Amino acid sequence: MAARSLLLIRGGCVVNDDSSQEADVLVEDGVVQAVGRHVLPPGDAPAGLRVLDAAGKLVLPGGIDTHTHMQFPFMGSRSVDDFHLGTKAALAGGTTMIMDFAIPHKGHSLIEAFDTWRSWADSQVCCDYSLHVAVTWWSDQVKEEMKILTQDKGVNSFKMFMAYKDVYMVRDVELYEAFSRCKEIGAIAQVHAENGDLVAEGAKKMLALGITGPEGHELSRPEAVEAEATLRAVTIASAVNCPLYVVHVMSKSAAKVVADARRDGKVVYGEPIAAGLGTDGTHHWDREWLHAAHHVMGPPLRPDPSTPDFLMNLLANDDLTTTGSDNCTFNSCQKALGKDDFTKIPNGVNGVEDRMSIIWEKGVHSGKMDENRFVAVTSTNAAKIFNLYPRKGRIAVGSDADIVIWDPKATRTISAKTHHQAVNFNIFEGMVCHGVPVVTISRGKVVYEAGVFSVSAGDGKFIPRKPFAEYIYKRIKQQDQAKIIL
Amino acid sequence: MAARSLLLIRGGCVVNDDSSQEADVLVEDGVVQAVGRHVLPPGDAPAGLRVLDAAGKLVLPGGIDTHTHMQFPFMGSRSVDDFHLGTKAALAGGTTMIMDFAIPHKGHSLIEAFDTWRSWADSQVCCDYSLHVAVTWWSDQVKEEMKILTQDKGVNSFKMFMAYKDVYMVRDVELYEAFSRCKEIGAIAQVHAENGDLVAEGAKKMLALGITGPEGHELSRPEAVEAEATLRAVTIASAVNCPLYVVHVMSKSAAKVVADARRDGKVVYGEPIAAGLGTDGTHHWDREWLHAAHHVMGPPLRPDPSTPDFLMNLLANDDLTTTGSDNCTFNSCQKALGKDDFTKIPNGVNGVEDRMSIIWEKGVHSGKMDENRFVAVTSTNAAKIFNLYPRKGRIAVGSDADIVIWDPKATRTISAKTHHQAVNFNIFEGMVCHGVPVVTISRGKVVYEAGVFSVSAGDGKFIPRKPFAEYIYKRIKQQDQAKIIL
Amino acid sequence: MAARSLLLIRGGCVVNDDSSQEADVLVEDGVVQAVGRHVLPPGDAPAGLRVLDAAGKLVLPGGIDTHTHMQFPFMGSRSVDDFHLGTKAALAGGTTMIMDFAIPHKGHSLIEAFDTWRSWADSQVCCDYSLHVAVTWWSDQVKEEMKILTQDKGVNSFKMFMAYKDVYMVRDVELYEAFSRCKEIGAIAQVHAENGDLVAEGAKKMLALGITGPEGHELSRPEAVEAEATLRAVTIASAVNCPLYVVHVMSKSAAKVVADARRDGKVVYGEPIAAGLGTDGTHHWDREWLHAAHHVMGPPLRPDPSTPDFLMNLLANDDLTTTGSDNCTFNSCQKALGKDDFTKIPNGVNGVEDRMSIIWEKGVHSGKMDENRFVAVTSTNAAKIFNLYPRKGRIAVGSDADIVIWDPKATRTISAKTHHQAVNFNIFEGMVCHGVPVVTISRGKVVYEAGVFSVSAGDGKFIPRKPFAEYIYKRIKQQDQAKIIL
Amino acid sequence: MAARSLLLIRGGCVVNDDSSQEADVLVEDGVVQAVGRHVLPPGDAPAGLRVLDAAGKLVLPGGIDTHTHMQFPFMGSRSVDDFHLGTKAALAGGTTMIMDFAIPHKGHSLIEAFDTWRSWADSQVCCDYSLHVAVTWWSDQVKEEMKILTQDKGVNSFKMFMAYKDVYMVRDVELYEAFSRCKEIGAIAQVHAENGDLVAEGAKKMLALGITGPEGHELSRPEAVEAEATLRAVTIASAVNCPLYVVHVMSKSAAKVVADARRDGKVVYGEPIAAGLGTDGTHHWDREWLHAAHHVMGPPLRPDPSTPDFLMNLLANDDLTTTGSDNCTFNSCQKALGKDDFTKIPNGVNGVEDRMSIIWEKGVHSGKMDENRFVAVTSTNAAKIFNLYPRKGRIAVGSDADIVIWDPKATRTISAKTHHQAVNFNIFEGMVCHGVPVVTISRGKVVYEAGVFSVSAGDGKFIPRKPFAEYIYKRIKQQDQAKIIL
Repeated sequence: MAARSLLLIRGGCVVNDDSSQEADVLVEDGVVQAVGRHVLPPGDAPAGLRVLDAAGKLVLPGGIDTHTHMQFPFMGSRSVDDFHLGTKAALAGGTTMIMDFAIPHKGHSLIEAFDTWRSWADSQVCCDYSLHVAVTWWSDQVKEEMKILTQDKGVNSFKMFMAYKDVYMVRDVELYEAFSRCKEIGAIAQVHAENGDLVAEGAKKMLALGITGPEGHELSRPEAVEAEATLRAVTIASAVNCPLYVVHVMSKSAAKVVADARRDGKVVYGEPIAAGLGTDGTHHWDREWLHAAHHVMGPPLRPDPSTPDFLMNLLANDDLTTTGSDNCTFNSCQKALGKDDFTKIPNGVNGVEDRMSIIWEKGVHSGKMDENRFVAVTSTNAAKIFNLYPRKGRIAVGSDADIVIWDPKATRTISAKTHHQAVNFNIFEGMVCHGVPVVTISRGKVVYEAGVFSVSAGDGKFIPRKPFAEYIYKRIKQQDQAKIIL
Repeated sequence: MAARSLLLIRGGCVVNDDSSQEADVLVEDGVVQAVGRHVLPPGDAPAGLRVLDAAGKLVLPGGIDTHTHMQFPFMGSRSVDDFHLGTKAALAGGTTMIMDFAIPHKGHSLIEAFDTWRSWADSQVCCDYSLHVAVTWWSDQVKEEMKILTQDKGVNSFKMFMAYKDVYMVRDVELYEAFSRCKEIGAIAQVHAENGDLVAEGAKKMLALGITGPEGHELSRPEAVEAEATLRAVTIASAVNCPLYVVHVMSKSAAKVVADARRDGKVVYGEPIAAGLGTDGTHHWDREWLHAAHHVMGPPLRPDPSTPDFLMNLLANDDLTTTGSDNCTFNSCQKALGKDDFTKIPNGVNGVEDRMSIIWEKGVHSGKMDENRFVAVTSTNAAKIFNLYPRKGRIAVGSDADIVIWDPKATRTISAKTHHQAVNFNIFEGMVCHGVPVVTISRGKVVYEAGVFSVSAGDGKFIPRKPFAEYIYKRIKQQDQAKIIL
Repeated sequence: MAARSLLLIRGGCVVNDDSSQEADVLVEDGVVQAVGRHVLPPGDAPAGLRVLDAAGKLVLPGGIDTHTHMQFPFMGSRSVDDFHLGTKAALAGGTTMIMDFAIPHKGHSLIEAFDTWRSWADSQVCCDYSLHVAVTWWSDQVKEEMKILTQDKGVNSFKMFMAYKDVYMVRDVELYEAFSRCKEIGAIAQVHAENGDLVAEGAKKMLALGITGPEGHELSRPEAVEAEATLRAVTIASAVNCPLYVVHVMSKSAAKVVADARRDGKVVYGEPIAAGLGTDGTHHWDREWLHAAHHVMGPPLRPDPSTPDFLMNLLANDDLTTTGSDNCTFNSCQKALGKDDFTKIPNGVNGVEDRMSIIWEKGVHSGKMDENRFVAVTSTNAAKIFNLYPRKGRIAVGSDADIVIWDPKATRTISAKTHHQAVNFNIFEGMVCHGVPVVTISRGKVVYEAGVFSVSAGDGKFIPRKPFAEYIYKRIKQQDQAKIIL
Repeated sequence: MAARSLLLIRGGCVVNDDSSQEADVLVEDGVVQAVGRHVLPPGDAPAGLRVLDAAGKLVLPGGIDTHTHMQFPFMGSRSVDDFHLGTKAALAGGTTMIMDFAIPHKGHSLIEAFDTWRSWADSQVCCDYSLHVAVTWWSDQVKEEMKILTQDKGVNSFKMFMAYKDVYMVRDVELYEAFSRCKEIGAIAQVHAENGDLVAEGAKKMLALGITGPEGHELSRPEAVEAEATLRAVTIASAVNCPLYVVHVMSKSAAKVVADARRDGKVVYGEPIAAGLGTDGTHHWDREWLHAAHHVMGPPLRPDPSTPDFLMNLLANDDLTTTGSDNCTFNSCQKALGKDDFTKIPNGVNGVEDRMSIIWEKGVHSGKMDENRFVAVTSTNAAKIFNLYPRKGRIAVGSDADIVIWDPKATRTISAKTHHQAVNFNIFEGMVCHGVPVVTISRGKVVYEAGVFSVSAGDGKFIPRKPFAEYIYKRIKQQDQAKIIL
């Protein structure tokens, strides 16, 4: 008989999204057994008990990064952070679960894409993960596969691209169909909100003007292009009363669209990302081409320098709800594919490792949110929306022991030289962040401590998610019942 | 040699958009010769002088209705107010010029449509008129014809439908092309702003729910559907820096989109119509089917009863700029085509006769605007935008003598029984309006006085309009020159 | 030795603000001992165990009414619901704690007022209660007493009136001083936000116009008067970075001010009340004077009929945070004091009994919020802001057993004939509400069940509250530390 | 018999606020006699005719600076630009009329102040001028004097300070009284909108923190302090339906308050100034104390660098209406009074000479407005609001010949070394402006040409203004008549 795995986190302040308390946490076989004072019976310590001292530290639910693209074949390249290194880096940053995207080509099977991504990930991941699936075209087959994925494969979220014309982009009627289907099967619809026609025309126009550098990227798709698509998605989702989740909200005007929709009573969520909260698009004008190119992602970082603060205020205020990273990293030699044409620069930035620190620094250390809201936006809200709560996103009896011991007073300096990601650039280079994850625990096991990993490829698990998450669907159902037309 | 035609309007208060003055107006051969005191040389009255006493009255530039559809073949029917009766009714209401739309079917020539409409109108109109032309599809031919229409045919405005899917609707890329073309040739782009996909889906959904009556009309295309399309049009126009004119702004949220775009410095104009300013969409729920059906138009009148006041405030405040009627009238037997299916009710309402009175009553009599702003929104602004100013839209030396003598203290009661339109219903039935046009003068001739017409079919003329109207294009050109990306 | 009091609530769905779970609740001696399955050890039921069957029902934290005025001497009268009947009615409606106001006259001691109110309440209350204290004037004595009340008397909230000129109203400089003091001592500042000068002038003007009826009440203090004061309070609080709580947010425009302040990162909370969420100000124009007069309160119910929905949307969305009732009831004979002069109508309406039902009906049954958000806005958020959490506002081990068994499917019809309040009128008369409290438990004792009370005057307790509530002050402190000037 | 003074401006483009036309302008004895082609009868040029060649130039109505403080005794000093040099500088910049303020001390006679200011100005001014009068306290005497000033002295505008506590500031009740009085006598109420209590407290706080430099000026009165007061003024004015004019709108949030009020139908006007449109408050942090101090004015220039563009957009869009300069200049030795305490730095900046150029450069050259709107915001709108139209603000037969010949293609560089003002600093130093006034004509006389003045002290005249300006009071009266409560 295998020995029990026992772990005691002692003396810390346990932080959940509703409140904080001084308490010990006892973990057995990967699951939280007790939270409180004196969680061990009096007497000798049980055999195999490992004790971690968390005095003066915070004990947080591990982060959930709602948005990553590991080893993603994209724009003629493949992102360098794969499921192995990417999830290791996540753990180093205090993130214990990632949500990646299976993305079929137009005309291809969603289930095949899902299986492909699982085949890449299952044996490689160092932390738990889940998969959103993209709907990049429409047919009866797609409709049927969405149902199968939801019923049998643990998928409850589908992403539609309103940009990447001719590649992933779907049109309004297809959005309408996809949203309708999401609602029938109890999934949440996700959108990449940019007007793909305008993006395409804008790029043509910039190139015609002779603007080929990274600055052309943002100039060709300014924030109005994002805000327009966001309102369109909100309007279509509202027409079918389908819950909507806007991934990577990058601009003030798009965020305002989301916030206003929520004020109107719509079931809409917005996800800013680490990049958008921690830096801005002025870097597109950097004199060094590579520096600028490494900031290229879609939708672009915005040149308005008040953007990050604005997004953080809305995140603090629950106008925005979750946070991801959109981690999709390309090395300099890959970025160089677009040396003479910004439309060929592979889109993507880092963030999976630094997301928690960025939000702590810009959100908590600045006084915009307290540590409870930090837990909500880095972990709990994602767990609720994607139906993992309270297994994930909370430190409570019965929850998975995905836990971070966080030192709110320590600082660290972000650098590509020291980060654990595969990519050779870091958009947050040189940023001094308060708030350091000193120990990361995944499924009850200490996987990262004081800079040292104790984890192997495949230690993480695929986490299936059930449809009709109560957090989002209780209102939807009741609205339908009340025949409310919002 | 023909005798000179001489007309003296004496003792009134001449109202232009900038100010009012007590002055006489002398008209010779259809053109204003003098405005002021003692405009006639001392001595005997010249031969053939007709004198109109305007004491205690206002002397206004004749109204310009920016939006009519006379004898329009539409939805399996044809609007009953034709160019003859429709323009007569216009004159009775103080409107001396209408702007109608030539609308080709998809795949058909714009020039042929233009010629068709002219053939209908030229011999019939009782007042001056002009034609907008619709772009309902896209091709090199369309592009070329737009240029010809602008250079040779007197057209400087093109309308694109974002609704009426499969009939007139064009998609974003086509909008982009059409807007780009408008800018090249110095025209202004007009849009019917509703999301046509959502309109179509909404209709299907309502019918599936068993909602077949007129109330289904508004339920199937609520104001979010209009506001979304409005923002989309603004965003696309802004991408090419093309001036945009949103026809029939019907809802508070769409009006807000227009107003916000203007605050952001965009060259955008919004046109509310008589129906939207004078009544609301609660009538769709009227117990009498015909009453409800007679209020059906697209975009719909809105059920929010605060809409008309809101629109009028924005019109007073120059957030909205011009006014039309979208006069497109169908008799009860025509409306009855949709007895069992609201999607078959021919869309359209009256307004060409009552527009001026409605705006006076709800705008001026209420204190929201003064008589100068009244002139601006019923006449001058249209003349400026469509490049007719100061020939039209102003009472000044050299201007066409399109003039209304207006009694601000008299009242009249609107009724289908007494109106001069062909249609057998009036959406403003029973409304008591202050402000009555007592004399209407078209091209220097008294055509309507105290209820009596003195006008014949064909007395009106087609008024060609030149491109690159200064009022709109000075800013556009300067912005392009300053390489401003707004 | 006294027998243990043991209560088991079996088979219900326990609802907290973060999630719901099927669970039993075991209560011992007034405190929750266990929540879960099998909370009793196997074997015989312990002696004295009472079992309540909650199958098919929800088990909620008892409501906290943040705003009542029991037996309040006001405007020459005294509110008829006293601490005894008022708290009984509260229990019948599912509210297990009220927060009342001790209000000294100008120049009088805050502590004396506090003691007076306690002397009225302590022996009378049937449920727990707490006291806010009003600051109606300013002096060193007031400043000192605020400290004593906070340190020794269990008060952490102080209310300032911006209206009731010459009676309770304080001016901007006094607000500044009071807010500064609140912050020093760790209290939250509350404001009644109306421009008292304009209220006074408006009343004079209406009376001068001969408008003496209840409609004059709202006409004399329209919503702009509330919105203006709200922005002023927000601005002043922001200048000293003091947390602000706006009581009885009654209008759309005032609510928008609160919501916008929150978007800007300010620590501001808004409290709509049952009356504002459940009815509107069109009643001021009721033909029956008494009906109209019974709706008179300050700030007034608003005539815009879209107000309640708007406020509920913001409450659902966390733009507004808590809910009270401002229960301050006067019988018809008292209201009649203002027969000839609306300024003499004692201000106040009911709500302490019906608040929970109103919010369930208009908020949950309509689909605007789920049951978790219902718990948040009726109980949990108040507990957090006023530093009672998790003792109050949550069903968890260690919390006070203030619990309601709620039948979400049952309905009841509100009526003055059947309500438990002393007042002879109910502003919600005839409203059919889903959601009925079937059993109310206070401090572990069943005090109300199926219409029958088992409670005595004095069974409730005064609940002291400590300063520097973490929920509000963590951010404030961190902001100050980060020297953020928002 | 004196010879006629005859002037012909030939070949230019005459620009009014409604349109532009190629035309000659004939001026006789200070008044425009003709505008058009061939304005002189055929034959020899009349004796004494002076001809100015305006080919390729614009011919504009002279600017009206709505806001100056010449030789103003203020903060222990006196502004160095007096009525002589200040008005000369105005002419050099294309401004032909200024509106200054007579400001009595609390308790002192308004009429005496008015007489004092006239005694300073009448013999000194080089261009026409008018006087607003400040109401700095309230009494029956003040009320009576307002009437006398309006009826007998040519004053139709009164300014109230909401800041400068204990010096000029009045409280809400006094505002209410003053606004009511303005309305009775047909004047327009002006406000300096800042919350004076918060300004005073903010200053105390900054000094207590040891912040004594110019940056403390803005930090102590951030834009929320301005926006709050603006909304308060709007609310109070609305309560009495008095037209309101907000002087020096300096911040985005205050401008938004004005714009929103206008959208709501209120008769409110906002006046941005040259400083706020042309520079920003980042200069308060300049390393050089004097540079920073020379930017100190109240309300402060804002550190948000997007402010000038925002204000210009709203000015272009008629959300803001007129422009002044608030010219109130102090030399470096005067500014030095506040070396150790920013509250002692005399408040004020330059602008009277450069206003027109700044607005041309940032407004017209940038493409935000055309030359017609330029005329509106620099001249015509002021003339309309202050009841000088069409005598001032328009080039038309009968108007005063206050005219500028403007070269839109020339540029000049602003500098204290070359400007004509008395002050030794220029906040626009180094700015290259397109748009140069090449000739300025005042009352028909060429007073400035190619850098050379031909004008003497006292050549300008006091221009009396009549009450009940139609432009503002037509709506007010009609609203009252329609018993509209907005």
